[in-house]
Amino acid sequence: MNMIDPNLPATDPGDAATVVAGTLHGVGLGPGDPELLTMRAVRLVQESPVVAYFAKKGRRGHARTIVDRWLQPGVRELPLYYPVTTEIAHADPAYNAALADFYAEAATAVALELGAGRDVVLVCEGDPLFYGSFMHLYIRLKDRFRTAITPGVTGMSGCWTAAGQPITWGDDVLTVLPGTLPEADLTRRLATTDAAVIMKLGTNFPKVRAAVAAAGLLERAVYVERGTMAGETVLPLIEKTDDSAPYFSLVLIPGNGRRP
Amino acid sequence: MNMIDPNLPATDPGDAATVVAGTLHGVGLGPGDPELLTMRAVRLVQESPVVAYFAKKGRRGHARTIVDRWLQPGVRELPLYYPVTTEIAHADPAYNAALADFYAEAATAVALELGAGRDVVLVCEGDPLFYGSFMHLYIRLKDRFRTAITPGVTGMSGCWTAAGQPITWGDDVLTVLPGTLPEADLTRRLATTDAAVIMKLGTNFPKVRAAVAAAGLLERAVYVERGTMAGETVLPLIEKTDDSAPYFSLVLIPGNGRRP
Ligand SMILES: C[S@@+](CC[C@H](N)C(=O)[O-])C[C@H]1O[C@@H](n2cnc3c(N)ncnc32)[C@H](O)[C@@H]1O
Ligand SMILES: C[S@@+](CC[C@H](N)C(=O)[O-])C[C@H]1O[C@@H](n2cnc3c(N)ncnc32)[C@H](O)[C@@H]1O
Repeated sequence: MNMIDPNLPATDPGDAATVVAGTLHGVGLGPGDPELLTMRAVRLVQESPVVAYFAKKGRRGHARTIVDRWLQPGVRELPLYYPVTTEIAHADPAYNAALADFYAEAATAVALELGAGRDVVLVCEGDPLFYGSFMHLYIRLKDRFRTAITPGVTGMSGCWTAAGQPITWGDDVLTVLPGTLPEADLTRRLATTDAAVIMKLGTNFPKVRAAVAAAGLLERAVYVERGTMAGETVLPLIEKTDDSAPYFSLVLIPGNGRRP
Repeated sequence: MNMIDPNLPATDPGDAATVVAGTLHGVGLGPGDPELLTMRAVRLVQESPVVAYFAKKGRRGHARTIVDRWLQPGVRELPLYYPVTTEIAHADPAYNAALADFYAEAATAVALELGAGRDVVLVCEGDPLFYGSFMHLYIRLKDRFRTAITPGVTGMSGCWTAAGQPITWGDDVLTVLPGTLPEADLTRRLATTDAAVIMKLGTNFPKVRAAVAAAGLLERAVYVERGTMAGETVLPLIEKTDDSAPYFSLVLIPGNGRRP
């Protein structure tokens, strides 16, 4: 039983041992347009003493760019810089090991703030729990600190909105596929779904386009780049003839289900 | 060639023939918590002379409830009441015919406002283009009026957030399934995906639970009811022993993909 009245102030609020740890907030920022943050995301960003974000070394980071307009002067920024890993192939175990080291260090940096009694808002592109980097800090810290998550509009919602294309109707099945999968897997899964979203294009793009064609879906597919951001591009996949696709790009196969 | 200078005012702005038609906005409201509207959704709701929403006859409607806090005094409300169709089985062609009539009437009611020069914000649960009723008005009106869509946080994002469960990691494939599908289809698709969301439970719930069990996923499944709303319930599916599930409920199978 706890005999201490929670309403009484701690004997010495300056004593580190009595500091109440901060809360880790994972806050989704939506697909890119700053007006697509939720009311809660804006409130948390403006109330929190610390705003953290992932970024590539030497870059500002996409999340930092999206949240820019909402940051209060004087907020403490905590950038978490990914190690440069382009020289290691993703399939190489050394790549996972480098990332594991990085997430451990990032968790330590965030834990320092939380331990000192400061809330940390870690801002994330799209929704934090949908293929998000936030998840790697979340699983490392959730048993030691209070956590709270604010969902966000996903990148894919931003993209089918940019394309003006309803993605699923009635009984449609939607399959979300990472472009990192082998071509044969992509083809087989595309051929057996009603609607699809293929994320993580980048260097996977030529393989993804080949899989869409092999599944007989080239005429229905839509390519979206930087959905809801500056430089947004929407075009029928069949009209995209070059092989380059940036990080923020995906392919949509809109469903054709029941329409009363 | 159009010889009329678009910068000149129309000769008689009071003449119905010269009225500039309004814009139809499809605005996503998110999973239910009013603080999960986007900044843009709140702005559009507050700027628009007309706010429309679908509701069951005799009910206030879920979308109307979610948006309540943000409505301005004096806004014109346009409820679009679904016909009572509970006595017609969904598989019966009469059900689709009744819905088609209803959407045609609703489109006419909205078109009247737009034609009179008033913007209409049609507020929608979750994201408007993801299994949304908005889509039925959108396809009926988009060739005659200007349209603009504001994506929203989906119900499923609200639910995996409520459960504190990352839904997809690394190369995970996510399958979104309507609970309306036959049990054998559900089982087969569940058995061949990494992560899943099963929506539209209601009377389909016992069938969905049987499919999850048949796919060997009962231990991993999470049941979420009214995610982010009053009365939110999260529990392991295996602990839910009764057969009743409301409209706002779904089942999650969180993915187990690569975690550096
Ligand atoms: C690591 S995942 C993170 C997804 C994010 N958590 C979300 O909810 O959308 C990154 C992938 O999401 C897709 N993506 C996210 N936002 C996008 C946007 N605005 N336009 C196009 N693609 C986007 C791209 O395929 C990108 O490779
Ligand atoms: C017709 S679909 C509409 C989906 C909506 N447009 C969206 O983006 O989430 C309705 C289904 O979504 C799911 N759903 C939506 N919001 C939910 C919530 N807050 N909690 C649980 N389920 C929800 C339920 O399975 C429900 O039957």
